[in-house]
Amino acid sequence: MSSTSKHNSGQKLWGGRFAESTSTLVERFSESVSFDTRLYRQDIRGSQAHARMLGKVGVLSSADVEAIVAGLDGILKDIDAGRFEWKMELEDVHMNIEAELTARIGDAGKRLHTGRSRNDQIATDLRLYVRDVIDELVPLIDRVAAGLLDLAEREADTVMPGFTHLQIAQPVSFGHHVLAWREQILRDRARLLDCRKRMNLLPLGAAALAGTVYPIDRHFVAEQLGFDGVTENSLDTVSDRDFAIEFCFAASLILVHLSRWSEELILWSTPMFGFVELPDRFCTGSSIMPQKKNPDVPELVRGKTGRVIGNLNALLVLMKGQPLAYNRDNQEDKPPLFDTVDTVTMCLQVYAEMIPAIAVKRDNCRAAAVKGFSTATDLADYLVRKGLPFRDAHHAVGSAVAYAAKKGCDLAELSLDELKGFSSLIEGDVYACITLEGSLKARDHYGATAPVQVRAAIARARASGAS
Amino acid sequence: MSSTSKHNSGQKLWGGRFAESTSTLVERFSESVSFDTRLYRQDIRGSQAHARMLGKVGVLSSADVEAIVAGLDGILKDIDAGRFEWKMELEDVHMNIEAELTARIGDAGKRLHTGRSRNDQIATDLRLYVRDVIDELVPLIDRVAAGLLDLAEREADTVMPGFTHLQIAQPVSFGHHVLAWREQILRDRARLLDCRKRMNLLPLGAAALAGTVYPIDRHFVAEQLGFDGVTENSLDTVSDRDFAIEFCFAASLILVHLSRWSEELILWSTPMFGFVELPDRFCTGSSIMPQKKNPDVPELVRGKTGRVIGNLNALLVLMKGQPLAYNRDNQEDKPPLFDTVDTVTMCLQVYAEMIPAIAVKRDNCRAAAVKGFSTATDLADYLVRKGLPFRDAHHAVGSAVAYAAKKGCDLAELSLDELKGFSSLIEGDVYACITLEGSLKARDHYGATAPVQVRAAIARARASGAS
Amino acid sequence: MSSTSKHNSGQKLWGGRFAESTSTLVERFSESVSFDTRLYRQDIRGSQAHARMLGKVGVLSSADVEAIVAGLDGILKDIDAGRFEWKMELEDVHMNIEAELTARIGDAGKRLHTGRSRNDQIATDLRLYVRDVIDELVPLIDRVAAGLLDLAEREADTVMPGFTHLQIAQPVSFGHHVLAWREQILRDRARLLDCRKRMNLLPLGAAALAGTVYPIDRHFVAEQLGFDGVTENSLDTVSDRDFAIEFCFAASLILVHLSRWSEELILWSTPMFGFVELPDRFCTGSSIMPQKKNPDVPELVRGKTGRVIGNLNALLVLMKGQPLAYNRDNQEDKPPLFDTVDTVTMCLQVYAEMIPAIAVKRDNCRAAAVKGFSTATDLADYLVRKGLPFRDAHHAVGSAVAYAAKKGCDLAELSLDELKGFSSLIEGDVYACITLEGSLKARDHYGATAPVQVRAAIARARASGAS
Amino acid sequence: MSSTSKHNSGQKLWGGRFAESTSTLVERFSESVSFDTRLYRQDIRGSQAHARMLGKVGVLSSADVEAIVAGLDGILKDIDAGRFEWKMELEDVHMNIEAELTARIGDAGKRLHTGRSRNDQIATDLRLYVRDVIDELVPLIDRVAAGLLDLAEREADTVMPGFTHLQIAQPVSFGHHVLAWREQILRDRARLLDCRKRMNLLPLGAAALAGTVYPIDRHFVAEQLGFDGVTENSLDTVSDRDFAIEFCFAASLILVHLSRWSEELILWSTPMFGFVELPDRFCTGSSIMPQKKNPDVPELVRGKTGRVIGNLNALLVLMKGQPLAYNRDNQEDKPPLFDTVDTVTMCLQVYAEMIPAIAVKRDNCRAAAVKGFSTATDLADYLVRKGLPFRDAHHAVGSAVAYAAKKGCDLAELSLDELKGFSSLIEGDVYACITLEGSLKARDHYGATAPVQVRAAIARARASGAS
Repeated sequence: MSSTSKHNSGQKLWGGRFAESTSTLVERFSESVSFDTRLYRQDIRGSQAHARMLGKVGVLSSADVEAIVAGLDGILKDIDAGRFEWKMELEDVHMNIEAELTARIGDAGKRLHTGRSRNDQIATDLRLYVRDVIDELVPLIDRVAAGLLDLAEREADTVMPGFTHLQIAQPVSFGHHVLAWREQILRDRARLLDCRKRMNLLPLGAAALAGTVYPIDRHFVAEQLGFDGVTENSLDTVSDRDFAIEFCFAASLILVHLSRWSEELILWSTPMFGFVELPDRFCTGSSIMPQKKNPDVPELVRGKTGRVIGNLNALLVLMKGQPLAYNRDNQEDKPPLFDTVDTVTMCLQVYAEMIPAIAVKRDNCRAAAVKGFSTATDLADYLVRKGLPFRDAHHAVGSAVAYAAKKGCDLAELSLDELKGFSSLIEGDVYACITLEGSLKARDHYGATAPVQVRAAIARARASGAS
Repeated sequence: MSSTSKHNSGQKLWGGRFAESTSTLVERFSESVSFDTRLYRQDIRGSQAHARMLGKVGVLSSADVEAIVAGLDGILKDIDAGRFEWKMELEDVHMNIEAELTARIGDAGKRLHTGRSRNDQIATDLRLYVRDVIDELVPLIDRVAAGLLDLAEREADTVMPGFTHLQIAQPVSFGHHVLAWREQILRDRARLLDCRKRMNLLPLGAAALAGTVYPIDRHFVAEQLGFDGVTENSLDTVSDRDFAIEFCFAASLILVHLSRWSEELILWSTPMFGFVELPDRFCTGSSIMPQKKNPDVPELVRGKTGRVIGNLNALLVLMKGQPLAYNRDNQEDKPPLFDTVDTVTMCLQVYAEMIPAIAVKRDNCRAAAVKGFSTATDLADYLVRKGLPFRDAHHAVGSAVAYAAKKGCDLAELSLDELKGFSSLIEGDVYACITLEGSLKARDHYGATAPVQVRAAIARARASGAS
Repeated sequence: MSSTSKHNSGQKLWGGRFAESTSTLVERFSESVSFDTRLYRQDIRGSQAHARMLGKVGVLSSADVEAIVAGLDGILKDIDAGRFEWKMELEDVHMNIEAELTARIGDAGKRLHTGRSRNDQIATDLRLYVRDVIDELVPLIDRVAAGLLDLAEREADTVMPGFTHLQIAQPVSFGHHVLAWREQILRDRARLLDCRKRMNLLPLGAAALAGTVYPIDRHFVAEQLGFDGVTENSLDTVSDRDFAIEFCFAASLILVHLSRWSEELILWSTPMFGFVELPDRFCTGSSIMPQKKNPDVPELVRGKTGRVIGNLNALLVLMKGQPLAYNRDNQEDKPPLFDTVDTVTMCLQVYAEMIPAIAVKRDNCRAAAVKGFSTATDLADYLVRKGLPFRDAHHAVGSAVAYAAKKGCDLAELSLDELKGFSSLIEGDVYACITLEGSLKARDHYGATAPVQVRAAIARARASGAS
Repeated sequence: MSSTSKHNSGQKLWGGRFAESTSTLVERFSESVSFDTRLYRQDIRGSQAHARMLGKVGVLSSADVEAIVAGLDGILKDIDAGRFEWKMELEDVHMNIEAELTARIGDAGKRLHTGRSRNDQIATDLRLYVRDVIDELVPLIDRVAAGLLDLAEREADTVMPGFTHLQIAQPVSFGHHVLAWREQILRDRARLLDCRKRMNLLPLGAAALAGTVYPIDRHFVAEQLGFDGVTENSLDTVSDRDFAIEFCFAASLILVHLSRWSEELILWSTPMFGFVELPDRFCTGSSIMPQKKNPDVPELVRGKTGRVIGNLNALLVLMKGQPLAYNRDNQEDKPPLFDTVDTVTMCLQVYAEMIPAIAVKRDNCRAAAVKGFSTATDLADYLVRKGLPFRDAHHAVGSAVAYAAKKGCDLAELSLDELKGFSSLIEGDVYACITLEGSLKARDHYGATAPVQVRAAIARARASGAS
C-alpha cells in the first residue's frame, strides 16, 4: 500500500502547484509541530503586532485587525488551557494557528499572512523566545549567585586545603572558594545579556527573503514587540541563527561551570574528602547496596554538560556551509535549542535550591589542610624576607619537605635545629608563619584568600546590588 | 512551600537509610522514566532470563520463577497495549516494572532482584536494545543499497559531468555515480555489524560493580538472551558504554554520507543543474511563493546530521574522565542514543522510499557534460599515446583550453589547424577520443566509469547476494 | 637503557623535593616550549610590569628593578632577532626566559618570581595575547566589511535570483546579497569586542591560587598593562579560561560565516551557475585535468571550519569537570587556541584580498533569475491588491505555475486569456509587475532588496564610519 | 605592493591554462607541504608500485621503470637523511618528489604520473599511512595491556573500596580494578584492527575521479603494496575519508579510556585517597610551592582527550555535505589526523612506561575500604539467605546503616542485640560475612572480584597469548 494519497494536495496551504500530496512518511519526517508548538505565545504575539501594523498602513481594514487580534486572543486562551488540537498535517505552529484562525474568523484570517512569510515569522518567534528565556535565566542566575554569597559569608573563616593538580597547595578560605564559583556564573550572566542585546532586532518584514511589496512599517512592529530596532538586511535576516548559537554557547559555558562545581561536590562528598554533606533530599540510594547515598544531582549536572556541548556543536554544524537564504535544514535548529533551554534551566534550578543546603564539615576541611605541607610556600616566603632570593628559598624548602615526608611529619613538627639544617636563616619566629591561620591571614590583598579580603569581596558584591 | 515531603522516604525501594525523601524538584530532575520506558521489552526479556537462571541454580523456587515469568508476560502485554501507568516517583523503567510485578505476584516479585543490580540490569537492557536496533537498521540499509543498484542499472549509460572542486572534471556514468553512494552505505553496514559483534556479550552478573554472592550461571543467561558470551570484568561491565558510543559513531558516518547525497540532490534539483526531479510527494511548497517546490527531504537529512554528530560528541564528553564504576552521569547516555536511533532510522526510511522515485533528466545531464572542457584529459592522454610525456601533454592542453575558453567554444569545436598549434602530434583521429562517449568508454578497468564496467560492478553486487 | 638519569633533579627550578629527575619521555610529553614561545612578548611585558610594581612597593630594590627590566629588554631583542636558544628541559616560555635572565643579571633574576606563580603568570600572558589578537582581527574584519560595501555598491543594480532551499525564490540585488554577508561579519566583530571587554582584567596577584604574602599593588600592574581593572578572586583567576573559549567561539562563528560565503562562491563558480569568476591567482589547477580551474580558497576556508569548531569543542571538553584551581590539563588550551588564531587570521586575510577581485557575470545572474518563476509571488501580491485574500491568491498562482511549467514557459509568457483562467481579476496591467525589475523595485522598505534601499543601506553604513 | 607576480604561471605543473600565477598569500594559504611531507615514505612506495605496474602493462619502458624506481630510492635516502629541500611553491609532498625526480632522471620522471592523479595518489598515501600507524599502535597497546596484567597479578589480593557514584560501594580487588582498564583497551585494539581490515583496499587507479584510459592492472599494484584488494568505485575512492575518520574515532575512545584511568590516578594520588604513588620521574613540581609533586602525566593525558575528540569532530564536519568527488576541503583532513596520531601514540607510550611503576599503598586502600559500610550488601544478602525477600532485606539493612552512621561506627561494630533490632533473623554467624575478606571472597563467579576469579581471569588472558 502506498503511503501517498493522490489528489488531495489542496489540503496544504501551499499546495496549488502540486500534483500529488506529500507522502505520509515525508509528512511525519518533515513536521515540526511536535516541537515548535512551544513557540505559540511568541507566534501569536508576533501575529498580533503584524496585523496591527497592516491596519496602521492601510493594508488591512480595522475590522479585519480587530477580528484577527481577538481571534488570536481566543486561540491563545485555548492553547493555554490545553484545548487546542494540533494537527501534524498542518506542519508547524504557524500553519496550525493560522488555519484555526481562519476557521474561526473567516477571510480576515487568510489576510493575516499578507506581507510576511514563514521565514521571517519563525525568525521573529525564535528571537522573542530566546529573549524570553534569557529574561527567565538571569534572575535564576542571580538566585544561584546570592546563594553562593550567603554560603561564602557563612564559611569565610573556614580553612580548607586549596588544590592545584588536585594536590594540596595552600590553605584557603572555604568562602573564598565558593566566591570563585560566583565569578564564573557572573561572567555567564554577562554573556547572556550581551547575546540579548545583540539579537534584540526585529526580523519581520524580511518576508521570504527579499522584503515585501506592501508598505509595511517595521519600526512600528519593533516597538510593539519590545525590539531595539529592526534588522538591516532581509537575506541575512531569514538565514541568521547566530543568536540561537550564541545562546547555546553561553549555556554551554554555564554547564561547564556547573560541571566543575559538581566535580568538586562529588569529590567533597566522598568519605575520603568528607568536606561537605548534601542533604538526603538531593541524593538517592542504591537498589542493591543499602548503605549508599549518592550525589545524584551533581552527577547528573556533570553528565548533562556533554549534551549541551553536543547541542552547540549540532547548531554550528547545521549552519556551516549553508548558502543563503533560508534552507529547510534550519528547522533542525529547534530541538537542540529547546533541549539546551530545558537543561540549563533545570540545572540552575536544582543548584539554586541545593546551594543553601550544603552542609560544610569544618573539622574535616581543617584536618585535610594540615596534611600535604600546605604552608611550605610560607616557609619559602619567610626565607625571602630574611634575604634569600626566591629561587634559593624554594630549593631549600623543597629539601626540607622531602626530609619531613620521609620522616612522616609536617614541617611545623620539625625541630628548629632540623629546620636550620636547610637554611641557617631560620629562627624561632618561623613557627608563627607556618600555621594554617598565619598562612591564610598573610594573603591579604585584593582578590586573595585572607578572611578579611573575603569579607571585603562580599561587601563589594552586596554594595553593587547583589542580594 | 517546601518541595520536600518528609517521612515518606519509604516509598523508594532504596529508602531505608534516608531521613528525608527526595525533593520533588530533584525527583523531576533525576527521573529517567520519561525516556527509558522505551527499553521495557528488553528489560522484561532480561528479567525473565535472570529469573529462570536463579531457578536453575536453586536461588528461586520453580514456583517463584513461574510466577515471575508469567507476571512479566502480563505486564509486557499491558504495556504493549498502552494499559500500563508509568510513575515518575518510581524513577525508571526497572523500578516501575518491578514494583508492578510485586503488586501483582507478591513476595516472588521482591525476590527477582536477587543477585543483580540496576547497574548490570541497565547495561543488559541497553545492549539488547542496541542489538535490536542494529538488526532493524541492516535490512533498511539493504533496501537503500538495493534501490541504488536498480537506479545505477537504469542509468548506467547516462552521461553526466563528473565533478571535482564542483568544477566539471570528466564525463561519468550516472549509474557509476550512485554506485559510489552504495559503497559508502555498505561500509556503514559493515561498521554496524562490527559493533554488534563486539558488544554481544552478557553484562548481567556484574551486579552493582563487583559481582554477586549468589551462585549465578552467567553463561546460561547469555545463551537464553542470544549473547555470544559473557563480559570479562564486573567493574568494566557496569561502567562501559563503548557499544553505545560506537553505535552513535557508525550512525554519524551514515548521516554524513546521507548528507553528502542530500547536498548533491539539492544541487541537482536547482534549475541551474536540473539533473534530477524529485517527485512532488517528497517536496513541499512555500507559504508565500506559489511557484516553489522545495527538496525538503534532503535538506532535513542534511540538517539532522549536525544533531547526530552532536549526540556522538555528547557521549564522548559524558564518559571522558569518569572514574569507575557506574556514575549517575551515565543516565544521560540515553537521550542522545535514542535521538540518534530515531534520526538515523527515519532518514534511512525516507531515502529507501525516495531513491526509486528519483527521475533523472538525461538531456540536462548530457548538456552539462558538454560544457567545461570535460574531455581535456582525454586530449592529454591522446598526446601521451603519441609519445609526449604526460607533464608536457598536460601543459599543451592547458594552453588549448585557455585559447578555447577565450574564443568561447569547446575543444572539439577547434579546427585541426588550431589544435595543431598546441602540438604538432595532433591529427585527425583526435576528434574520436574527445567526445563524451569516447571519453566514458575509454575508462575501462575495474572500478572505472565505462558503462561496461558499471554493469560489471552491478553484476558483481548481484552475484554477491545484493537484491 | 633507562630514559631517566638519576641525581640531576636540581636542574629543574622546582626540583628541591625530588629524588629522581623527570623521565626524558615525560619531559618530551609535558613540555610546552615548542608552542608557548609564541607568548614571549606578553611574558616579558608582564614580567617588567611585575618587577616595577615590586620596586614600587619596596619588595625589590630599584637597582634590581632596573636590572630586570633592562635584562628582559635585551632578551626581547634577542628573541625578536632569532638569537635565543629555547631549551626543552626548561619546560616552558616562562622558565626559559627567567633562567636566561638570571644567567645574564644574576640574583636579581631569581627575585623576579617573588609574589607570583606560573599560574597567574600564564593567565596574564594569555589574556594579553588574546587581547592583542583581537586588536589585530578587528581591523582585518573592517577591511573585509569595506570590501563588501564596495562590491555591494558596484552591484546594487545587478539582478540575480534569490534562493530559498536553493530553489529560485525571488529576484534580488547582488549588492543586497553581499550586504547580508556584511551583517554576519559585523556581528562577529561585536562578539570579539564583547569578549575583549569582559576579559580585560589583570590576573597577576592570584599567585599559585590564593594570593601572595607580599604587599603587592595589583591596580598599579593593571594600569601599566592596559587592563581595565583586576580580577576579583584568586582561585577563579588561575583556573579561568572562559576568555579563550569565548574567543574560540567568536572565531567559530566567523568561520561558519566565511564557510557559508565559500559555499556560495563555489556554487557560483560552477559552469551551471556562472554568476562570478574568481581571478586565476586565487585558484589552482589539476595535476591531471588540464582544463581545471578550481576555487581552492573558498574550498579550503570551508574545510578549515571543521577544524575551528573542533578546537572550540576541545576547549569545552578540556575544562568540563576540572576541579579548582589550576590543573595541568590547562596546558592543552594553547594548541587549539593558537591554531584557531592562525586559521581565522589567515582566512580573513585571503577573503580581504579576494573580495575586491570577484568579477560578477551580470548577464548570467540575470538569465538565471528569469528561470524558475521568480516573480510568482508578485503575481499573488497583484491579486491581493485586486482584493483576493492572500491564501486564495497563493493558490491561484500555484495553479498557474503548474500550468506554465507543464507548458514549458514563464508566467509572463502566458497570454492574458490563459492568466484570466486562474483568476478573473487579472488584467493587462499584470505584466508590468511580474518583470524582474518591477519585482525588485517593489520591495522598497527598510532592509528590503530594492536597489534604492540597497543604496540607502550603503549610505547608512558609510555614515556610521564604515570606509 | 601586490602579492602576485605575473607571467610565471608556468612554474606550476598544472599552469598551462592560467593567465596569472597564484597569489603568494594564496600559495601560503593553500600549501600542504608544511605537514604532508610526513607521507613521503608512503608516497614513494606507492609511486614505485605504480611505475612497476605501468611497466608490466607496457605503458612505460623497463628503462623508464628502472630509472623511476632507482630515482625514488635515492630521493627516499636523501629525505631520510634530512638532505631534501621542500619547496612551498611546489604545494605538496607529491609535486615536490615528482619535480625532484624529473630533475634527476629527466623525461621518465614526467611519465610517472601517467594514469593516475593526485586524487588517487593522496588516497593511497593516506591509507598506507594509517595502516602503518595502526601497525605501530597495536603492539603499543599490547605493552600497556601486559603492564596491566602484571600489575593485576601483583595486586590480586589487595583490597580497595569499589566505588559507584564515587561513594564507597563494595570491597574489590585492586587487581580486578586494573583488569577493567585492560578490557577497555582491548576493545580499542579490536576497533583498530576492524578499521585496518575495512580500509585495506587499493585506491590507485581511480585517477582524478573516473578511472583512466590506460590499461592499468590495479590488482598487481594492490598485491605489491600489501592491500587485500582494490576499491570498487572510482568516484567513491577519491572522495572517501571514512578510514581516517574511523581511525580518529578509535583514537578518541582510546583517549576517553586513558582519561578515565587518569582521573582515577589523579584521585588516588591525593593525600585524601593515597591509594597509589607515582614515581618522581612522572611528576613535576611547582615554581612557587616547594612541597608540590604533581601528577602531570595523567593530567595531560586527560587534557589531551578534548583535543582528540575535537579532531574527530573536525573530520566529521569537514566531510558533511561535500558533493562528490574530491574537493579541496579534504586537504584539511591531515592536520587533525596527524595530531591525533601523535597524541594517541605519545599517550600510550607514557602509559606503557608508567603502569609498571605505579606503587600501590595497600594499607591506605584497605583502610579506605573499611569506611563507608562497604559490606552492607553482604548483610542484606545474608538476610536473603535466611529467607527474607531481597527488597525487605535491603530496607532492614538501610535502617541499620542509618543507625550506625548516627552512632559513628561500622556495621561490624554493632552488637548482635543491636543488629537483631533490625531483623530477628540475624545471628552470630553474621560477622563472618561482613568482613572485607569475606565480602571479597564471596563474589566468586566468572567476571567477579574474588581473588580466585581475578587469578582465573589473568590465567585466561595469559593462555590466550597475552604476555
